[in-house]
Amino acid sequence: MSRTTAGPEIERLIQLLAKLPGLGPRSARRAALHLLTRRDQLLSPLSDAMRLACERVIVCSTCANVDTQNPCAICRDARRDSSTIVVVEDVSDLWALERSGAVSARYHVLGGTLSALDGRGPEDLNLGTLAERARDPEVKEVILAVNATVEGQTTAHYVTDLLADSDVKVTRLAHGVPVGGELDYLDDGTLAAAIRSRTTF
Amino acid sequence: MSRTTAGPEIERLIQLLAKLPGLGPRSARRAALHLLTRRDQLLSPLSDAMRLACERVIVCSTCANVDTQNPCAICRDARRDSSTIVVVEDVSDLWALERSGAVSARYHVLGGTLSALDGRGPEDLNLGTLAERARDPEVKEVILAVNATVEGQTTAHYVTDLLADSDVKVTRLAHGVPVGGELDYLDDGTLAAAIRSRTTF
Repeated sequence: MSRTTAGPEIERLIQLLAKLPGLGPRSARRAALHLLTRRDQLLSPLSDAMRLACERVIVCSTCANVDTQNPCAICRDARRDSSTIVVVEDVSDLWALERSGAVSARYHVLGGTLSALDGRGPEDLNLGTLAERARDPEVKEVILAVNATVEGQTTAHYVTDLLADSDVKVTRLAHGVPVGGELDYLDDGTLAAAIRSRTTF
Repeated sequence: MSRTTAGPEIERLIQLLAKLPGLGPRSARRAALHLLTRRDQLLSPLSDAMRLACERVIVCSTCANVDTQNPCAICRDARRDSSTIVVVEDVSDLWALERSGAVSARYHVLGGTLSALDGRGPEDLNLGTLAERARDPEVKEVILAVNATVEGQTTAHYVTDLLADSDVKVTRLAHGVPVGGELDYLDDGTLAAAIRSRTTF
């Protein structure tokens, strides 16, 4: 956008919006205009919501989930199964698992993966408290719900080694054909994994 | 997102972000997390930028452009050609023309198009002041820079009728092959327009 057409306030709004994932320079301009033409319905409430989130949202010191209380609602929830800790890469993965309703346990958010390429080592991940949590006699199982990527699997191996001297059972998610998936569209690695892990019908 | 996993503050932030063009529910969650993990670098500045834009940005009473001053920077710019008014549908079109540097004139933002389907009539557009501006003896030409859509062209016809009794020359953008465009990928309408409006080489 040429600097002469809009004031620095609009310019700055566009620049900051463009830093959101999923928005490029062009869609940031569209979003800014959308906001400016819906000042009372959207721009003002969104600004307030951001301010509030900025002030209130904190990171759970137990599991590194984001919430407005510490420990977070999941760590405090007495109805959840405390014997299982689900290890995820990011809060978005935690949310995905919660949406699925597949598990009602505690979580542990690593905050990323190990990556030699990007220079992320174990000290960059939230690993210190995980070993500690796994030593709790109540905890029986740690499910490694990391992505099925090279980085995810590297991280899973590292966590397995880390927990080797504790008494917990370490499991990982099953690999196989996604529900609704068509074989013709699947990669060889997934098909091989699905064959390898076949179960009785 | 399940309501049990995050506080109402995060929930609300996601809901409002999902209203931005280009962001759906899933990308709004990603954007919210992106913001929450970059509180000082992004969430707080963006909230401030929105608050500032909310307080300062106003609509120019002459051309309906958005700016922090009224009349806007374009309407005040003495170096621009005051004899030409470029009529655009939205501020985003004004920005696009400014980026291109193709014209250095005044603008008039309609704020949309006529649309029988969506029930938008002339009273919903910023048309009242256009006829008035066109009556200014300084104004010699009105360029209709509306989209080449059915709605855009309908609006162009309406504006032409509206300006019929003024002395200004009403022009429209040329139709033709986009620069860098390949004939094989163009629709028949564009090809026909390009043939019709062919020029000497």
